Amino acid sequence: SGHLSHYGIKSLQCKPTRILSQLPCNSSYQRRLFANKNMTVELDSNTGVAVIQMKNPPVNSLSLEFLTEFSISMEKLEMDRECRGVVITSSIPRIFSAGLDINEMYGKTPEHTGEFWRAVQEIWLNVYGSNLVTIAAINGASPAGGCLLAMACDYRIMADNPKYTIGLNETKLGIVAPFWFKDTMMSVIGRRATEHSLQLGIMYSASEALRNGLVDQLIAQDKIMPTALSVMSEWLAIPDHARQITKSMMRKPTLDRLLTNRESDIQNFVNFISKDSIQKSLQLYLEMLRQRKS
Amino acid sequence: SGHLSHYGIKSLQCKPTRILSQLPCNSSYQRRLFANKNMTVELDSNTGVAVIQMKNPPVNSLSLEFLTEFSISMEKLEMDRECRGVVITSSIPRIFSAGLDINEMYGKTPEHTGEFWRAVQEIWLNVYGSNLVTIAAINGASPAGGCLLAMACDYRIMADNPKYTIGLNETKLGIVAPFWFKDTMMSVIGRRATEHSLQLGIMYSASEALRNGLVDQLIAQDKIMPTALSVMSEWLAIPDHARQITKSMMRKPTLDRLLTNRESDIQNFVNFISKDSIQKSLQLYLEMLRQRKS
Amino acid sequence: SGHLSHYGIKSLQCKPTRILSQLPCNSSYQRRLFANKNMTVELDSNTGVAVIQMKNPPVNSLSLEFLTEFSISMEKLEMDRECRGVVITSSIPRIFSAGLDINEMYGKTPEHTGEFWRAVQEIWLNVYGSNLVTIAAINGASPAGGCLLAMACDYRIMADNPKYTIGLNETKLGIVAPFWFKDTMMSVIGRRATEHSLQLGIMYSASEALRNGLVDQLIAQDKIMPTALSVMSEWLAIPDHARQITKSMMRKPTLDRLLTNRESDIQNFVNFISKDSIQKSLQLYLEMLRQRKS
Repeated sequence: SGHLSHYGIKSLQCKPTRILSQLPCNSSYQRRLFANKNMTVELDSNTGVAVIQMKNPPVNSLSLEFLTEFSISMEKLEMDRECRGVVITSSIPRIFSAGLDINEMYGKTPEHTGEFWRAVQEIWLNVYGSNLVTIAAINGASPAGGCLLAMACDYRIMADNPKYTIGLNETKLGIVAPFWFKDTMMSVIGRRATEHSLQLGIMYSASEALRNGLVDQLIAQDKIMPTALSVMSEWLAIPDHARQITKSMMRKPTLDRLLTNRESDIQNFVNFISKDSIQKSLQLYLEMLRQRKS
Repeated sequence: SGHLSHYGIKSLQCKPTRILSQLPCNSSYQRRLFANKNMTVELDSNTGVAVIQMKNPPVNSLSLEFLTEFSISMEKLEMDRECRGVVITSSIPRIFSAGLDINEMYGKTPEHTGEFWRAVQEIWLNVYGSNLVTIAAINGASPAGGCLLAMACDYRIMADNPKYTIGLNETKLGIVAPFWFKDTMMSVIGRRATEHSLQLGIMYSASEALRNGLVDQLIAQDKIMPTALSVMSEWLAIPDHARQITKSMMRKPTLDRLLTNRESDIQNFVNFISKDSIQKSLQLYLEMLRQRKS
Repeated sequence: SGHLSHYGIKSLQCKPTRILSQLPCNSSYQRRLFANKNMTVELDSNTGVAVIQMKNPPVNSLSLEFLTEFSISMEKLEMDRECRGVVITSSIPRIFSAGLDINEMYGKTPEHTGEFWRAVQEIWLNVYGSNLVTIAAINGASPAGGCLLAMACDYRIMADNPKYTIGLNETKLGIVAPFWFKDTMMSVIGRRATEHSLQLGIMYSASEALRNGLVDQLIAQDKIMPTALSVMSEWLAIPDHARQITKSMMRKPTLDRLLTNRESDIQNFVNFISKDSIQKSLQLYLEMLRQRKS
């Protein structure tokens, strides 16, 4: 345990045998489905691979309800002794996730906005800090929070469609990606590309995203899930214990930075989003979205 | 303001309305020219874009006088409510800037050398920490201090001419780029390329500079200013406030590192440059330059 | 010296004139050979370039004896006024170095394992922190510790042979590269490639290693030594003093991180390697190696 604590891991996620022993012990039992409103979670206990399919029409907005369900799903999988990896994808055509739900930030009480932001932090902590192998199968557009979710995974496969774009475009809406969005992007594409990308709020096409390392691989849309599962099997060929310690060694400083600044980060977000000028920007943006629809 | 202080910005540059209200309020008044000895500064108050053209023949050496004028010009633009971005370029053919003026370091008193070094720090603090959009239009050779000036900008466009080179070549002269030159280069081309580049004092051709990310874009010499202005308009499409907070989030730690070590950095430079061996190197270098001219 | 201490160098390696004055002062005296069991070390005092040829058949395993000899050789060269650079290569066909000798970790006392790990730290401190120009001429496979040794150099030239691979493959054996292996790899290929590479224990082909920057140059096997010497002469064209300060400015924080955590790093390694599960993994691996041979 000296070795583990050296790399700053307080206690490695120990899969509790007790929970599993209460499940029906049926050898032909291979697939389990968690029913949720905003996503389906299916675990193949033969391979140890779970798939989370986001389904929150029309654009998989990360609402408070969505975020809460997602975090609970991740925690369940993390605790499940049979689960070793998770693929995150969308069941909505042409959209991976459109990012944070602006409705949760506009015209809400500070209490609500704070609760919402805590849920955004939570989903990132759960994915970026997961002991599981995490693969994003990005089968559609992925701006802002959608991009954050993908960047928090271990590996990113994107559908090779020039219409799909991915990036942190916050500045375009007059808002600012917080420091841990920035840290996550830096850990993927490096500092210079992050500075350029965040200042301009750049949305990259799939091929640009491949070129600058924002995604690891492009593949035809209809091959994205088989490819994700095939990549997953390569990752699962590595002993979990060694891989998990290595992952933690890489990611713990970035995780700790949010953990030690969590409350002030919430307060900052609430203060910022409550400003008249920002509320006005969000209002205009929501009106624009409504006009597009009609 | 909690959000701002979170990103370490003590007080965002507030454009003082009082100053502007004292100017003639003429709607056709669009261009203002600041007259200086070593550069011209022209602000188009319609677009919000200023252009600084360096003109200190023969090679735009960064003399103490030049540095002081440049810093004052940047501060003026920073305070000017009508200015949102600045393009830095040269009016001298084939030279962007040859870097620090060696004459300011050779055979001078420690007081003079210290004053000179403080002015070098000041120009970097003003450009790297600017709230304006800063674009370098590198229309000629750009060694050492010239490269530093370009790297401190938000974006770099270089004339596509294989004869123009750019880089931090200090070690070739037997001197050492200080830590904040190094930090600036790392923020542009990453750590490995910086280590390699600084140890060997590499001067990159325009195409090499593009390949390793030292510049963002190459363009034919005669298109460099229209291209710079076109890129500038893309940057100005982003709301200033969000872009400035984002830029500060990226750059403040690097700026702070010099701010907290400023006096010791000056003392180190003065001690180093005063050494007999270094003075001897500079003397030989100045003699070589003189022989080249004749 | 203010300038030096600024960059954190406590005392620059001063080549002791006293030692050299005791050597025969023969102007035709150009090559000196250090006889060792596990390597030959030859210094050309005309050029200032030493070559270390590792020869510990069958695969240049880094045994305790090997590591000790290597560190002593590096220290000798470092103190030798006539030596300015060193090329590290292998005299064993198709193998640069297979990395740490597993026999030193399997079934040994904690005292032995601790002594071994200290020797691994020492070789890295000596190479990564060397004032000499260090060039790896990677003329064969270079996994794990072999890759670390190459990454610790200033420049890497690899034989252009698709059969030769290089990388930190520790997780594949169920073990974990320690933080300073990770830091060294990050300093060469950046954070994202390191995270990916370490989690999967990726071994890169020569051409992949070139593409991601793990090596700087590929060359035909029979041209590797002339190329290394030619690259060395470029590095030696830079004044030693300026190059050494610059190198130290880049590398000192990484070196200091191990120096301040050296004892705990040893303790962590000993605790980790003593675990039953790890000993079992090493046993299986050693048996696999034995079966391959027969």
